[in-house]
Amino acid sequence: SRKLLPALVQLQAGNAFHERSYILGVGRTPMRDADFRERVQAPVELLERCFFQVVDYEDAATYATLAARLNELDRVHTVAHRRVLYLATPPGVAQIVVERLGASGLSSTSNDGWVRVVLEKPFGSDLASAKRMHQVLSGVFDESQIYRIDHYLGKDTVQNLLVFRFANAIYEPIWNRNYIDHVQISVAESEGVGRRAGYFDRTGLLRDMVQNHLLQLLCLTAMEPPCTMHECFMRDEKVQVLAAVAPLSPADGQRCSVRGQYAAGQIGDEVVRGYRSEPGIAADSAIETFTALRLEVDNWRWQGVPFYLRAGKRLARRSSEIVVQFKAVPASVLQPLIAAQLTPNRLHFQLQPAEGIQLRFETKAPGPQLRVRTAAMQFNYAEAFGGPPPDAYARLLLDVMLGDATLFLRQDWIEHAWTVLAPVLEYWSHDARDLAFYPAGSWGPAESTQLLARDAREWLAK
Amino acid sequence: SRKLLPALVQLQAGNAFHERSYILGVGRTPMRDADFRERVQAPVELLERCFFQVVDYEDAATYATLAARLNELDRVHTVAHRRVLYLATPPGVAQIVVERLGASGLSSTSNDGWVRVVLEKPFGSDLASAKRMHQVLSGVFDESQIYRIDHYLGKDTVQNLLVFRFANAIYEPIWNRNYIDHVQISVAESEGVGRRAGYFDRTGLLRDMVQNHLLQLLCLTAMEPPCTMHECFMRDEKVQVLAAVAPLSPADGQRCSVRGQYAAGQIGDEVVRGYRSEPGIAADSAIETFTALRLEVDNWRWQGVPFYLRAGKRLARRSSEIVVQFKAVPASVLQPLIAAQLTPNRLHFQLQPAEGIQLRFETKAPGPQLRVRTAAMQFNYAEAFGGPPPDAYARLLLDVMLGDATLFLRQDWIEHAWTVLAPVLEYWSHDARDLAFYPAGSWGPAESTQLLARDAREWLAK
Repeated sequence: SRKLLPALVQLQAGNAFHERSYILGVGRTPMRDADFRERVQAPVELLERCFFQVVDYEDAATYATLAARLNELDRVHTVAHRRVLYLATPPGVAQIVVERLGASGLSSTSNDGWVRVVLEKPFGSDLASAKRMHQVLSGVFDESQIYRIDHYLGKDTVQNLLVFRFANAIYEPIWNRNYIDHVQISVAESEGVGRRAGYFDRTGLLRDMVQNHLLQLLCLTAMEPPCTMHECFMRDEKVQVLAAVAPLSPADGQRCSVRGQYAAGQIGDEVVRGYRSEPGIAADSAIETFTALRLEVDNWRWQGVPFYLRAGKRLARRSSEIVVQFKAVPASVLQPLIAAQLTPNRLHFQLQPAEGIQLRFETKAPGPQLRVRTAAMQFNYAEAFGGPPPDAYARLLLDVMLGDATLFLRQDWIEHAWTVLAPVLEYWSHDARDLAFYPAGSWGPAESTQLLARDAREWLAK
Repeated sequence: SRKLLPALVQLQAGNAFHERSYILGVGRTPMRDADFRERVQAPVELLERCFFQVVDYEDAATYATLAARLNELDRVHTVAHRRVLYLATPPGVAQIVVERLGASGLSSTSNDGWVRVVLEKPFGSDLASAKRMHQVLSGVFDESQIYRIDHYLGKDTVQNLLVFRFANAIYEPIWNRNYIDHVQISVAESEGVGRRAGYFDRTGLLRDMVQNHLLQLLCLTAMEPPCTMHECFMRDEKVQVLAAVAPLSPADGQRCSVRGQYAAGQIGDEVVRGYRSEPGIAADSAIETFTALRLEVDNWRWQGVPFYLRAGKRLARRSSEIVVQFKAVPASVLQPLIAAQLTPNRLHFQLQPAEGIQLRFETKAPGPQLRVRTAAMQFNYAEAFGGPPPDAYARLLLDVMLGDATLFLRQDWIEHAWTVLAPVLEYWSHDARDLAFYPAGSWGPAESTQLLARDAREWLAK
């Protein structure tokens, strides 16, 4: 009701939801069609196509009932069996649902139709569990039927990373180790654990945010240009980025990773409690609500260029951004100014909120002396396009209906992502002593600052 | 009174005009110090240091009187003989003044002081006359004493071209034939010939604007990075640009040059007369008020990249700008969009008015389809620095006083500039039939459009 139904309403408003399509809500809560319709904020013409079916996820008979209901609805709406099964289920439930869907035949693509299944994270909690989950899934669905959703990939500003890189001829020549000093990727939330306490306290921030969103952003920033944006080439290239990430040794686990947990603090005017005092969280929880990582992509393009990743809850401000920090000029023409006195260029992709792109560059300061001043060229999404970017879920649901998996995760990528993070998880599993506390409303623990200070760098949050 | 005195007032206001310095106005008009002070809009403390000396440029005795007056003023103001001789004389008069200055000893640097001479354009009207003029000049002054002024080089936005190129690491790697398609340099005036009819109708726009301002802008855009901004290296590099300009053949004269003259027309709401109807202009004048040129800089960096230069009077709008048009992407990743559907990047240096820099780039258009839209990153000088750029003359006068010739023209550059233009002058001298008329308020004659159309390009005035 928070994300999917509003997205469908948006699609319908944009004439992108076919007039004969319908929505069948499925859940354990006893509800009639009318009750379900009361929950959906939608125009009448869409409400009339909303239905509800009560199910028991474990009961095989339920699936026969479901199949009959779908066939009947297909008949009434005169549509072929073209079905998107969206599994917004709790993690533990997905597997049984998949198995039952398989057993009931609901997973099978028929002659005049197709079945696609959409899955939400988590895609396992480590490499082994991700593989086990895939074994179940691939026993029922073909990989081409599977759409693993990461709503970050549906964001216009995230896709614009690729347009920026590949629709402009001037950046790609300098998009490499010769000109780029390092890259910073930050996904900061000001909210706390909120209503997801139970799930989050078993999962932690690394699995919840880094394994998917941040590593995806890393891939989009670092990937080679594919021959086209076709899902196959796109996803191949992203996998190659992860495959090139230099494996962290056990020692790197300590040197290159930071985990933190928020203590009580203040965000704006609001005094907020610490993580361990949140409802539903264990008083001695050692789960991280903040992570910072230092990774290197050890390929021709990026060898020696660190990628710093940072994500956390209860940080000073909600902000997702990518900073590409270029190297200094090789020599100063502008003596007596030396090269070190010139601020290196910086590209700043503000993914949300206040979406935009900023390029910092040196310009002549007014006046007779040769002094430079750092100025910015600005691109503001809302100004340029007259409003904020469209909803990510709407875009992704449309892609599922159109059968375009470009913006969805492929199993091999997920496995590589777990491989990248395995040494960190391994290191963290041994010892909770390095869990660093940070006051809510800050930018994370001091260890995060130190992670970059060791490289003589600092976080460049705007 | 229009440029120099206000510039000195500005320097004094900024504490850049030494408190013991004084100004001696020199001219044929009989005037007392008090009359001269009435013409100067300045605060009292500066007015008290303004004096006037009536001279007869041709009379040797005048210079003895002048020397005595200067020595006396030096004594009163307790300054050493550190003198800037600013020759704001009509073209025909400069030579005799220089000779007389030499004969009188006023040109000589003494033990405890120095003498510098500032000259305004024209620096000859072709290569031969420029050399003749220099012969006179170098018989009297050492090259290190000579400051040939081009106020375009004093503009902050013009100097910022060098800061932009050499204080930022990200442009230099793409500042060459591999990434740049072509360069456009435009200096457009909306004014007509104004009060300079007599001079202009003997000179024409090519000599008045292109030989100095536009070729300087070409040099700043195209030059290699010097080892430092020292005047010697800076001016060496600029000479090398002109020396690399591919010599135009007689046939190129026709193919690569356009000359125009404004006819009656309208600029904004104002109906204006044609050039031949201006006061002081011959009714059959064949002098050009518009020029467009196509040049190539035939060196490693720029081979094959055309530089289009355009300047004119009575054009639609006053605007000086440099447009660097980058090449298209080598291949389109974003199919079905093909490379030709992506707008190539463009850097736009707006030198005056509305000073700023604009970078056009492709961005993702909002919405689920993969469409691109051209957007701009903007840098606005007045916004960034809280006001328009400082006055060019003030800067240049200060440089003369400080003995920094970096922003002044060197004789060898001037000779190379005449060499570059010689084939055009030669071609134009034979035949006036190709003089093309354009209505005042337009962007010049159709031939100017055709000059670029032949290369499948167009003028990109903002």
